Amino acid sequence: MERYKIGLLQLDSGSDKASNLKRIEGMIEEAVAGGASMISLPEVMNIISGRDGPDPAEPIPGHTTGLLCRWAKRYGVWIHGGSILEDAPGGKPFNTTVLVSPGGELLASYRKLHLFSVDIPGGVRVRESDRMRPGREIVSLPTPLGHLGFSICYDLRFPELYRLLALRGVQVLFVPASFTHPTGEAHWEPLLRARAIENGCYVVAAAQCGEKPKYLAHGNSMVVDPWGEITARAGQSEGVLMAEIDLALVEKARSQIPTLETRRPDAYTLEAAATTPE
Amino acid sequence: MERYKIGLLQLDSGSDKASNLKRIEGMIEEAVAGGASMISLPEVMNIISGRDGPDPAEPIPGHTTGLLCRWAKRYGVWIHGGSILEDAPGGKPFNTTVLVSPGGELLASYRKLHLFSVDIPGGVRVRESDRMRPGREIVSLPTPLGHLGFSICYDLRFPELYRLLALRGVQVLFVPASFTHPTGEAHWEPLLRARAIENGCYVVAAAQCGEKPKYLAHGNSMVVDPWGEITARAGQSEGVLMAEIDLALVEKARSQIPTLETRRPDAYTLEAAATTPE
Repeated sequence: MERYKIGLLQLDSGSDKASNLKRIEGMIEEAVAGGASMISLPEVMNIISGRDGPDPAEPIPGHTTGLLCRWAKRYGVWIHGGSILEDAPGGKPFNTTVLVSPGGELLASYRKLHLFSVDIPGGVRVRESDRMRPGREIVSLPTPLGHLGFSICYDLRFPELYRLLALRGVQVLFVPASFTHPTGEAHWEPLLRARAIENGCYVVAAAQCGEKPKYLAHGNSMVVDPWGEITARAGQSEGVLMAEIDLALVEKARSQIPTLETRRPDAYTLEAAATTPE
Repeated sequence: MERYKIGLLQLDSGSDKASNLKRIEGMIEEAVAGGASMISLPEVMNIISGRDGPDPAEPIPGHTTGLLCRWAKRYGVWIHGGSILEDAPGGKPFNTTVLVSPGGELLASYRKLHLFSVDIPGGVRVRESDRMRPGREIVSLPTPLGHLGFSICYDLRFPELYRLLALRGVQVLFVPASFTHPTGEAHWEPLLRARAIENGCYVVAAAQCGEKPKYLAHGNSMVVDPWGEITARAGQSEGVLMAEIDLALVEKARSQIPTLETRRPDAYTLEAAATTPE
């Protein structure tokens, strides 16, 4: 499908997992009624409890991804699952995104590569590596809705990842997030637009909103087209944001400004490391 | 010097080299009177003639860089020379930036790595590689005004270059430019801000403005601080833009969000190629 609608769920996920998942199903139904062929969710979509340790994790496949598979099949829609915390050996969970087909199959998963670290005196202080385990692998998947590439939140600050995805042929970059409000206000929009522009890709960024135990989430879920224009943008409250993806615009942007072809691999090399099992 | 003023010259350079250079000297005088310790010029600052072949090139050192050295010494100021076309063997010139000390010494030069290529149907069509020769080397220089890193215009679309400069310790990134108006309106600001944010660097971008033979130049010379805020911005006419550089803000941004430390060189490698003589 060259042109289709995508529904981004902007969520104010709290500590009640069942309530979060119930609202998510309602919003998926709403997006599908609006014509969405794909749904995209934000980071840590199923629970944000604010306890001192990490939030409860689940295996993948497990309860939450099982629901995503059931909903994908029931509503005949692709679901990009934002992220959930994934049980990992050793105690610290991964922060993991999944992609589910309308057949209800879990086709891909990506574990957040870069762990958030911020220290604003008198403001937000978070060091994700204290309570999470990073992934190792760069993940993309060709689908009937385009070649999709995965990332999560803080990854956005690392252009290396997006360039490597674009060089693999990715057309749509996902950036599910739970940005804090101060860093979101300062950095969210220019970084999302830059990733779209420099790679000639769509950027789909579903975000958390609302007051979390440790920070105010920035909201502002966004879709940026391959020319860098913001084609849809949410405010700061929970809801469905609809946008159109037209894969022809990826080819158009890349033919107008052939960034990927005019790189200088003779002057610098950028390569993914050989992946080893985690 | 940890804190200093910088004067960006936004120029509407035309086909009369002597007139361009005369206005440049006047603007340097004005910036120095305003307290500038450093001057930064735009791309192809000495001549834009619009002839069919490349504009006239010069050797480096040569007439234009000789003037820069004389002015730097006369006014006791650092000069980042934007760029000029540099004579090269084989006919096609390099597009080259130079850095001159207040002692009048030419300390560094950088040859544009990425050659502009754009093809907007019914709009701008330029293929720089038809009439210019690309450089090969990534160039930075530690100075009393900070560790300075060089780039020119279209390079801005390649985050690899800026990341490599930041990893070398660069604190101030120069992006002299002559962006076209349509691509400038769509891409100039988010890309400049992204380079500052993702690397925790100052970005200093002096630009051409005005109607050139083949395109309208975008102007909007800009200084972006390491948190991504635009601290000075010009409009679309010729003039001096003053801004303050405070190198302490580089360290501050990097300690608040330690992007350079939280990269994943075990998951991807980014390296400059070994340089060979051109």
